Amino acid sequence: MTEQLIAKQDQASPRTLALAERLRTAIGAAKVLTDPSQLRTYECDGLEAFRVRPGVVVLAEERDDVVRTVKLCAEAGIPFVARGSGTGLSGGAVPVADGVLIVLTRLRRILDVDPDNARMTVEPGVINLAVSRAAAPNGQAYAPDPSSQQVCSIGGNVAENSGGAHCLKYGFTVNHVMGAEVVLPDGKVVHLGGSAPEHPGYDLLGAFVGSEGTLGVVTSVTVRLIKVPEAVQTMLVGFHSVADAAGTVSDIIAAGILPAAIEMMDALAIEAAEAAVQCNYPAGAAAVLVIELDGPGVEVAEQFDHVETLAQARNAFETRIAQDDEERALMWRGRKSAFAAVGRISPSYYVQDGVIPRTRLPEILADIDALAERADLRVANVFHAGDGNLHPLILFDDAVPGATQAAEELGFAILDLCIDAGGSITGEHGVGIEKKSKMASQFTAADLDTMQLVRCAFDPDGLANPGKVFPTPRLCGERPGVRTAGTAPDPTLGEVF
Amino acid sequence: MTEQLIAKQDQASPRTLALAERLRTAIGAAKVLTDPSQLRTYECDGLEAFRVRPGVVVLAEERDDVVRTVKLCAEAGIPFVARGSGTGLSGGAVPVADGVLIVLTRLRRILDVDPDNARMTVEPGVINLAVSRAAAPNGQAYAPDPSSQQVCSIGGNVAENSGGAHCLKYGFTVNHVMGAEVVLPDGKVVHLGGSAPEHPGYDLLGAFVGSEGTLGVVTSVTVRLIKVPEAVQTMLVGFHSVADAAGTVSDIIAAGILPAAIEMMDALAIEAAEAAVQCNYPAGAAAVLVIELDGPGVEVAEQFDHVETLAQARNAFETRIAQDDEERALMWRGRKSAFAAVGRISPSYYVQDGVIPRTRLPEILADIDALAERADLRVANVFHAGDGNLHPLILFDDAVPGATQAAEELGFAILDLCIDAGGSITGEHGVGIEKKSKMASQFTAADLDTMQLVRCAFDPDGLANPGKVFPTPRLCGERPGVRTAGTAPDPTLGEVF
Repeated sequence: MTEQLIAKQDQASPRTLALAERLRTAIGAAKVLTDPSQLRTYECDGLEAFRVRPGVVVLAEERDDVVRTVKLCAEAGIPFVARGSGTGLSGGAVPVADGVLIVLTRLRRILDVDPDNARMTVEPGVINLAVSRAAAPNGQAYAPDPSSQQVCSIGGNVAENSGGAHCLKYGFTVNHVMGAEVVLPDGKVVHLGGSAPEHPGYDLLGAFVGSEGTLGVVTSVTVRLIKVPEAVQTMLVGFHSVADAAGTVSDIIAAGILPAAIEMMDALAIEAAEAAVQCNYPAGAAAVLVIELDGPGVEVAEQFDHVETLAQARNAFETRIAQDDEERALMWRGRKSAFAAVGRISPSYYVQDGVIPRTRLPEILADIDALAERADLRVANVFHAGDGNLHPLILFDDAVPGATQAAEELGFAILDLCIDAGGSITGEHGVGIEKKSKMASQFTAADLDTMQLVRCAFDPDGLANPGKVFPTPRLCGERPGVRTAGTAPDPTLGEVF
Repeated sequence: MTEQLIAKQDQASPRTLALAERLRTAIGAAKVLTDPSQLRTYECDGLEAFRVRPGVVVLAEERDDVVRTVKLCAEAGIPFVARGSGTGLSGGAVPVADGVLIVLTRLRRILDVDPDNARMTVEPGVINLAVSRAAAPNGQAYAPDPSSQQVCSIGGNVAENSGGAHCLKYGFTVNHVMGAEVVLPDGKVVHLGGSAPEHPGYDLLGAFVGSEGTLGVVTSVTVRLIKVPEAVQTMLVGFHSVADAAGTVSDIIAAGILPAAIEMMDALAIEAAEAAVQCNYPAGAAAVLVIELDGPGVEVAEQFDHVETLAQARNAFETRIAQDDEERALMWRGRKSAFAAVGRISPSYYVQDGVIPRTRLPEILADIDALAERADLRVANVFHAGDGNLHPLILFDDAVPGATQAAEELGFAILDLCIDAGGSITGEHGVGIEKKSKMASQFTAADLDTMQLVRCAFDPDGLANPGKVFPTPRLCGERPGVRTAGTAPDPTLGEVF
């Protein structure tokens, strides 16, 4: 169906081509692409199943390119989608057919480094890892570390509220973004947040982070930096049962220990990682935990012993402690390669992203097993165990008729488990195109209406990344309570004081 | 001027009295007050300079009382203000004349305690300290601790995004509220957030926390709990200069130590506290720091020594370490009583609340001194030094003509210093009525317009706590970009997938 659409739209409509001409005049012809062969590159993001060719691609080089592009889109009533590195896994940066795709990768300047206040301001195309690299000479780092951190951009992280292995201790992107300059869908430039810890008025920055491009385009981001911890220690623990591994996770948290990361992989994920990167994980393990502690040396040492004791009480059969950076890197290589590694043991795979209360891990993992068996599919589990963020990898063979659909259905059934357990349909990958139909299971109609109020307030014409996140296409004029000018007297008491 | 208003409005208008009758039928006559002598109690909150008598007071006892009241207000087009314990310092709970005041103090049930997931769900009238008390048997606590924690309510904390001495390490209310049930200004009940660490869609909970009652009324709050730290150690350090005390604060943070609290008081604040509670602070100190560390015992012990060394390097002339809970309580008594204590040494005082980057403390404190001298007023400084949250207490004699105005002007001049330094006009007390005129200094017109977009989306008729937070009364219909039904085609791609 998607392929058909692309075939029909080899060339943008005359209306969009006319906008392209105005864009060329406004920001320079070299930054505006309309040649179908050039546009192909931008058809999809990391969720490759969804492909749509845009009408125009803008390669923005400075903030004003974004402002002018958004303004011209608003005038023409043509939708736009912002794109960072294109590594997102939920289709959030899939273009709108015949619309404009604003590519932000060339906006990659570091604008300000303020080690005294532990802040850095960067353009949205700056790569996640580049922030930590620029902070390193001052002994500081940027905490959120998605597995894609070598390629994903800060702007994309802001759109998706990205997490990473270390968000158990350090929190998500929203906990590290202090301020942002944003181009609203009408082209107005506003500043949300700032460098002070608290601000009056509505915390719109918090609502903007994770809004998946539906409220505007970010053009600069001020992040807070953490001090690089004095000590880091990593251990790899093997268990003969998934339940024991999950129980150890709960025991560690219950003991008041907050590791920087607790990652879990089951036997099938271990098998895949072993085939791909020879990480030499404990043989015969039903599950492994990668546990990393950081902080003052004396604290890490004491807590590390405590964690080891807790794991042994849950029948851990092998515990390895990284003796140097090389061993530590090897332990992480198995975990970080797991998604790609699954490609070694299956023709195709589909990764899901759901959240459950940590205390229900063993039970939900058993339920996933049961669902997988019923669907006659294999599921490899790799996840951020400490905060209950599951990443089931569903293995299938796309050459088998119906297998793709069966994998998708299993993925959605797993999300239903997450919702029923009081969790969430996404931990860090976002809703995008992929999971918008699930929003109606996660939220009541009133809850979704309330989000729609904000969407319509920022973007009444629905031009910013339309067709993402929300399940039901809806006219903003349809929302209840909208007023036309002059009918709503404001009973403010301003004049009394 | 305010007094005149009250005199004129001894009795509510017929329209509001008619609403009161409908309220009596809907929720029970005993919960609806209209007798002027009963209404007097509710004329002001902790900012006693602003007094307005409401038309009706509703003493809600359950959630549905709030829902019905808000719905009837919406139908009648009569504004409402929610009130918790009334301890706010910026006038956020000052009633609207002839409007409805919804008092939430009777909604004080603890609805759910979930120690395994470290969550508690409470009604908005529950007292802040009661949450920690209910969590204590499980070794858990609620971290945000305003000085008013023995009387202030969780609902009020949510409205103001309250902080406290320990928010340096633990963050503000927004960092501890996981979910809320909210009655929107049209009476619809929605759920924001939830107990999972991450949720899809817009983070409207983050925007709601700190919205000072302008987006709706909270009827239940799910908070996260922290584990009570293994060890707590408190020290009191005396300095001969404010600059040395401020320098020590910066040195501690720069060393990568994150104390639970770093509080600072200057000589005048110490003098007041001494007169009030005989806290026996070091004699002759130009400034004292109260520094508290918590965490694993071994970490606290090591960092405590480090802090002592840093203070001595900045010429601390006396360091006392609390040997037991009683000594610790005495150290805190001086700090926590400081606001009230100033009443001992001055006929009147006015407390401000501003934020500056921590690194600029010595410089800004000198600027405040200069401003005070020019205004011929004394200023006692008491503040959360670790996060740069100043609480200057301006001493004046309200019997002297013009003195009240001079104190107010000095307070606002101090806020200008905060803004110029890249800080904020409020750290934790909110904008309310008091500081709404300052919002235009803190924010650009475009930034304020963007907040107004959200306000109008939630509350197009301006019924929820009108006249607070925003400087300029404005009709929602005036906002740019508003559309009437049917004019805005939504170019969603929903049908493609």
